[in-house]
Amino acid sequence: MTINLKNFLNPKIKMAKMGEFQELQPIKGLEISSISADLYGDGRDDLTLFYFQEGANFAAIYTTSKITSASINWNLKIKKNFAKALLVNTKNANTFTGIKGAQGLKEVAHVLSKVLTIRSSQSPKGISEVVKITDLLFASTGVIGEDFPYIKIKNRIPELVKKLKTETNKFVWFKAASAIMTTDVKPKLAYEECKIGNKSVKISGIAKGSGMIAPNMATMLSFIFTDANIPSIFLKAILKTVANTTFNAITVDGDTSTNDMVVIFSTGKAKNAKIYNVLDPNLQDFKKALHRLSLNLAKQIVADGEGAKKFITIEVIGARSISMAKKIGFSIANSPLFKTAVAGEDPNWGRIIMAIGKSKENIIPNRIQIKIGDQLIVDQSKVAKDYSEKKVKEYMKWDSINIEVNLNIGEADYTVYTCDFTHDYIDINADYRN
Amino acid sequence: MTINLKNFLNPKIKMAKMGEFQELQPIKGLEISSISADLYGDGRDDLTLFYFQEGANFAAIYTTSKITSASINWNLKIKKNFAKALLVNTKNANTFTGIKGAQGLKEVAHVLSKVLTIRSSQSPKGISEVVKITDLLFASTGVIGEDFPYIKIKNRIPELVKKLKTETNKFVWFKAASAIMTTDVKPKLAYEECKIGNKSVKISGIAKGSGMIAPNMATMLSFIFTDANIPSIFLKAILKTVANTTFNAITVDGDTSTNDMVVIFSTGKAKNAKIYNVLDPNLQDFKKALHRLSLNLAKQIVADGEGAKKFITIEVIGARSISMAKKIGFSIANSPLFKTAVAGEDPNWGRIIMAIGKSKENIIPNRIQIKIGDQLIVDQSKVAKDYSEKKVKEYMKWDSINIEVNLNIGEADYTVYTCDFTHDYIDINADYRN
Repeated sequence: MTINLKNFLNPKIKMAKMGEFQELQPIKGLEISSISADLYGDGRDDLTLFYFQEGANFAAIYTTSKITSASINWNLKIKKNFAKALLVNTKNANTFTGIKGAQGLKEVAHVLSKVLTIRSSQSPKGISEVVKITDLLFASTGVIGEDFPYIKIKNRIPELVKKLKTETNKFVWFKAASAIMTTDVKPKLAYEECKIGNKSVKISGIAKGSGMIAPNMATMLSFIFTDANIPSIFLKAILKTVANTTFNAITVDGDTSTNDMVVIFSTGKAKNAKIYNVLDPNLQDFKKALHRLSLNLAKQIVADGEGAKKFITIEVIGARSISMAKKIGFSIANSPLFKTAVAGEDPNWGRIIMAIGKSKENIIPNRIQIKIGDQLIVDQSKVAKDYSEKKVKEYMKWDSINIEVNLNIGEADYTVYTCDFTHDYIDINADYRN
Repeated sequence: MTINLKNFLNPKIKMAKMGEFQELQPIKGLEISSISADLYGDGRDDLTLFYFQEGANFAAIYTTSKITSASINWNLKIKKNFAKALLVNTKNANTFTGIKGAQGLKEVAHVLSKVLTIRSSQSPKGISEVVKITDLLFASTGVIGEDFPYIKIKNRIPELVKKLKTETNKFVWFKAASAIMTTDVKPKLAYEECKIGNKSVKISGIAKGSGMIAPNMATMLSFIFTDANIPSIFLKAILKTVANTTFNAITVDGDTSTNDMVVIFSTGKAKNAKIYNVLDPNLQDFKKALHRLSLNLAKQIVADGEGAKKFITIEVIGARSISMAKKIGFSIANSPLFKTAVAGEDPNWGRIIMAIGKSKENIIPNRIQIKIGDQLIVDQSKVAKDYSEKKVKEYMKWDSINIEVNLNIGEADYTVYTCDFTHDYIDINADYRN
């Protein structure tokens, strides 16, 4: 099925085929709505609401930046682990918007809580509950320092709530994943199913990239929903572990955003047996499924990195510690010289060596072995014996490049995912605000 | 005077006007020679020899990378503070060239010591001294991992020594500064005069950039010569202090080379009174002159950064410590998002905020003030009251952009120099080895 996304996507974006993406399933207890508050001035969707009529446990990870969005500051103040709704806007980051930015967000929260309370009272199930402003989470992404358009957002909340869909079919998910995009070219969606005990559990997740992607929750928003019944405290522990090798293992440009947020909500509707312990063997399958889903979304973010033409996997093995492997992996992945060489399809392994060296990690140079694809390139402090530049040059033409660095001094490893550095990155970012 | 550089420069380089550069003066006790060993295959100069018949005190600073060139390894093994010659080659970094690279260098050293010993015995002054291989220093720059072309280099040494010029006039300096270039577009030269006591002292320096330029001696070679008489131990202390706010205050792409080296030689021919103490007030003038010269060369390196169109000065003031100011300055200067915005002449100050935040330094967001040129942009956590985007956009069209970040939490400051990130950077680096 090919749908014309022009009605709700950034019009610069070409048609996308829904068939390319995983079909996400509804998550019981979650309703979704995406509409336009015309923040871009072209009618594309820019507001998305996720609503849990009966609430949901949640756990979130935020940017490590010392300067954070008003929306992140809001979320951090909420000490509860139970939420009723998450409102996401694009175009405006609500960062460095002064007191007005924070006050504007508060006004939005008041209106949202009021409109949701009214809706709750009209619930066919007859459940009527007051939605408090502390039941609400927010995420913003876009330009820093422009006045937060809270009036435009506020005015669209009645319509946003009215359009909430209980039946979150694949089209609703696709529309939501598209509405949270900024410079992304494709929406990012992932789906998994698993078992907790004898109950089937669903996990649906969406994300956006695409610049300022660096370790530690860099310019990314990722919203994950499950009908599993897992207490927030365990969700948090699981999410942290999972993020370490997924969302925190990717980098586009080494820049870190002020607005990053990965959050998982659990509605409990799958009615699995209560979990009392994060090490409960019943959680094994869920942990694996969440890891698959997160890695899938993280890879989609990198593949859609600004201007990216090639997907690069850097495996650092044989390190003394995971920290060493991670530092070296990111030193390579963030090196502009390395990334431009990949863009030029040039197997310039000297730049991998340079990036290993500049990490300052205590390696032993003559133990390093580097593979590009399955070809050994570097061995014993020099180019490998059977190295064929011709073969590697062929390999470098592929869309997906694997690099393995074996430090041969220990047992630890870490994998980093990144993309190349192209002319389009410059075009997108030299002119981002126009 | 316009000279055709085609005969000794990389032929890709356009004509350069010697009149654009400072005229360097001869340094008594120093002879220079630059010729081609045809390492590039196009006849450009690629070998440069600096020779001190009566030797010179010296001090050097090397790359902080954990992987270093065979030439740097050689220099580090020499425990003397007195040198007879420095040989520089371009095209080949002699890094990750295995045992053969180190052995090749040793062969070159043996030939050079022999040929220089013969020359010494033919000296008109009748000074005949054996030049030992431990009297020799080396510098290499170019591609990592390609076999070190020691035979080609060795074979050209007799000619290189034969061409040594005592009368190092401006043309000889210009030729040498051109011979050490790689992807540099312009040679880099600087000259200063000063007094030590009642004696006039000269300082002549040349450098090369232009990618892999990042803090801590990143991909740069800089060779400075003075006729002052200063013991090596004091030279070292002075050079370290000077480099901290000059060569170590610049960044092109955040990448650090395996081959960086800044070295100062002092021939003693100015016959200034002996220096017994690095705090000797007689050294004040020299320290200032060396700082001016080093900053001059460092700025030339940035201005000629790969693909650079704009020179950017980032002053971080009001920090709690110099280290804090430096980290924030480099976090901004190395951010691809910031650098591409400058290339696009877009005053996207949100990216400066992002880069301050990602430095993880303990700032107070609402105290930050940012100026672009002399316009206040950010104040009290938001855009400044009288901010005129129109005016700043005009300013962004200039070739040289000043950014001041006042953290308003302390007294320390630090200035970083960098350049923008353009399409040409990608072109140069995607295709560097071809």
